[in-house]
Amino acid sequence: MIAYRSLRVALLGGGSVGAQVARLLLEEQEELALRVGAKLELIGIAVRDVNAERTVDLPRELFTTDAESLILGADVVIELMGGIEPARTLILQALGSGADVVTANKALIATHGPELFALAEQVGAQLNYEAAVGGAIPIIRPLRDSLAGDTVLRILGIVNGTTNFILDQMDSTGATLEDALATATALGYAEADPTADIGGYDAAQKAAILAGLAFHTSVPIDSVYREGITGITAEQIASAQKAGYVVKLLAVCERVTDPATGIEGVSARVHPAMVPRDHPLAAVRGANNAVFVEAESAGSLMFYGAGAGGVETASAVLGDLVSLGRRHVAGGPGLGESTHSELPILDISSVSTRYSVTLEVTDEPGVLAAIANVFAENGVSVELVEQSIQGDAGTATLVIGTHQAPEAALAATVDALSSNSVVTSVASVIRVEGAQRP
Amino acid sequence: MIAYRSLRVALLGGGSVGAQVARLLLEEQEELALRVGAKLELIGIAVRDVNAERTVDLPRELFTTDAESLILGADVVIELMGGIEPARTLILQALGSGADVVTANKALIATHGPELFALAEQVGAQLNYEAAVGGAIPIIRPLRDSLAGDTVLRILGIVNGTTNFILDQMDSTGATLEDALATATALGYAEADPTADIGGYDAAQKAAILAGLAFHTSVPIDSVYREGITGITAEQIASAQKAGYVVKLLAVCERVTDPATGIEGVSARVHPAMVPRDHPLAAVRGANNAVFVEAESAGSLMFYGAGAGGVETASAVLGDLVSLGRRHVAGGPGLGESTHSELPILDISSVSTRYSVTLEVTDEPGVLAAIANVFAENGVSVELVEQSIQGDAGTATLVIGTHQAPEAALAATVDALSSNSVVTSVASVIRVEGAQRP
Repeated sequence: MIAYRSLRVALLGGGSVGAQVARLLLEEQEELALRVGAKLELIGIAVRDVNAERTVDLPRELFTTDAESLILGADVVIELMGGIEPARTLILQALGSGADVVTANKALIATHGPELFALAEQVGAQLNYEAAVGGAIPIIRPLRDSLAGDTVLRILGIVNGTTNFILDQMDSTGATLEDALATATALGYAEADPTADIGGYDAAQKAAILAGLAFHTSVPIDSVYREGITGITAEQIASAQKAGYVVKLLAVCERVTDPATGIEGVSARVHPAMVPRDHPLAAVRGANNAVFVEAESAGSLMFYGAGAGGVETASAVLGDLVSLGRRHVAGGPGLGESTHSELPILDISSVSTRYSVTLEVTDEPGVLAAIANVFAENGVSVELVEQSIQGDAGTATLVIGTHQAPEAALAATVDALSSNSVVTSVASVIRVEGAQRP
Repeated sequence: MIAYRSLRVALLGGGSVGAQVARLLLEEQEELALRVGAKLELIGIAVRDVNAERTVDLPRELFTTDAESLILGADVVIELMGGIEPARTLILQALGSGADVVTANKALIATHGPELFALAEQVGAQLNYEAAVGGAIPIIRPLRDSLAGDTVLRILGIVNGTTNFILDQMDSTGATLEDALATATALGYAEADPTADIGGYDAAQKAAILAGLAFHTSVPIDSVYREGITGITAEQIASAQKAGYVVKLLAVCERVTDPATGIEGVSARVHPAMVPRDHPLAAVRGANNAVFVEAESAGSLMFYGAGAGGVETASAVLGDLVSLGRRHVAGGPGLGESTHSELPILDISSVSTRYSVTLEVTDEPGVLAAIANVFAENGVSVELVEQSIQGDAGTATLVIGTHQAPEAALAATVDALSSNSVVTSVASVIRVEGAQRP
């Protein structure tokens, strides 16, 4: 299949996310063309200083300081500058000129979303912003499309990685807020001025966006109640721990009925909260994000992943880009694009994984060496052996954990074990998944 | 905003999912019309027996046994019959007549997906099947759209609720497979003939669908390696537990390189596996489902929720329906539909939640009664009080957990406590979220 047309893509912003988006557009050009059904041609990157140092090596000729001219020649504009202006004006210009827009700009969507959505709808353009909340975690699209036929009742979101890292440090090490913040800063999880994060401002913008989407209404950022984590003490964390809770900074969006007036409405708020240790959100550690959604029909859903990072956020931006690119291509949303790959389907014997093998063996000297030899001869590396000697029959049970090994090698090992005189039986072979890979 | 046109929706199948879809289409007609920008008109429900008993009370005149005629008058056909035929023929007829299709039929997509997708692409129709994997959990759309610009490396999925319930029972109670299966059957989690579930056949169909989407290739169902849970013993579960693992039935889809030939390809397999207890999948309990995705740029993501159930699956079907309905409506994908709601934005004072209040009080008789009175007078119900008497100063610390109460009532309580003579200070007030609601 050959890409039969080209979409001209303009990038605004060359920071950590922008540089990764540009790299992926160049490196994955052929694969992306197959997925879209059209070539995605990066026509330029608008930056403040074309000579600034970049985290990624990109062709110098792509850079320009003239964002307005760049936009004029684009089918799609990706805005990754952040902040309100000039991002807002440039997006309005792009939509006005008929271009589709992808943005990761949470501050802009939270404060000027209605204006931008109205213009996009008026001109029939697409405006995607999956990367604005939860980094690489798909949450905008599930709320907008997958839950479009349901009634969302409540959202509990861990939507700021910095504060989750700090609270997790305090919870797991007993550190004070001050010390945990210092660790976060040293590890690059917190910025030099951490106010936007620990003050809850970043989370409040995301709460406004999530509430707007979930409840099909416009939720102004200044209607979001906001409390940061600055008042949280080691004593509070310890006390919560003792009571079976963990403290998280939550964005809470819910349908509520005012007890005084009986008026039904929606509320969005951000504040530290105690969450039961057996709640799925309690297991969200480090700088990760997760959004827990309760809907009338769907019940409880959770979306979990890395909430920030240049390359992670770039993944969400590219997902938005490919999705809107597909709609540009004639023939609409058919799924033919999902089967362009030439990758062969390999048999289970090609798979490598780890194994736990349980053997019944005769309990006599030299058995362990004999067994170990069988594994070694078949190219399977043993990670650990656990032996439990049994009562009377002169037999013992060995549980052998292997390093990663090909299925074919393991099958040969099991065959050899079965015919080995010291092995009474191969009681079980079970694969081990989800452990760290080498 | 008034819906300005109508989409004629035909439903094939009136079982537990179909009945819920019909109910929601009728009950939520106005809200759905606002979301789509067009009325969704249910024109009929094709069933084998119009007089059969239904789980939901629906207008008798909607039912028909003539599926073919029903399809001819439809803009959108929702197929919830299950099985290969006549579902396949009817979907081909629907697509051929220009209708869009929504289906929850995993067996059909896993075995005849390529044929259906090819026809849909050829005629420019939409074919959505979010409900085919993971019930209400959005996973098809995130893989198809959100991760469309990324490279998926591996998927580990718990995609069969029955087997997860059984394995969770064995893990938490030490039950045998036989006993756990009996419990699952008694609670309605397992069917009378549980072969499709415990043999891994259902999970294998879902693995084929996920692998096809993730790797943009066609993965035939008979290329999926399959092992069920029938060989799993209480001893294996206990041994895994001792070693820090939990046994799950996993659908594993990954990019692999054949060690013998060096050929790169993809593999899909279903088998029981030991998963480390600190892996997010280990926390997926009961009949829940979760899909863990590792992608090159996005890193690790997880999607979690109820994997089955009539109303949950209906949520996914309606999401597909609203999404494709929006594309029917002129003006395309603008997000104006997200802000049609008239719900007011309520202040934090309208919110009700639970609280943990820490007080420093004078340590003398009658203090607890005095404090309890303050809460009661302000309409806040106390769930538990924990007292830790301190050393020398004649003061004590009280931690008071409340039942759900309005913010306004709690604020009044805190005011009253602050001015009460037995209270030295209100050390902290923190909200409690994520606990069971009354």
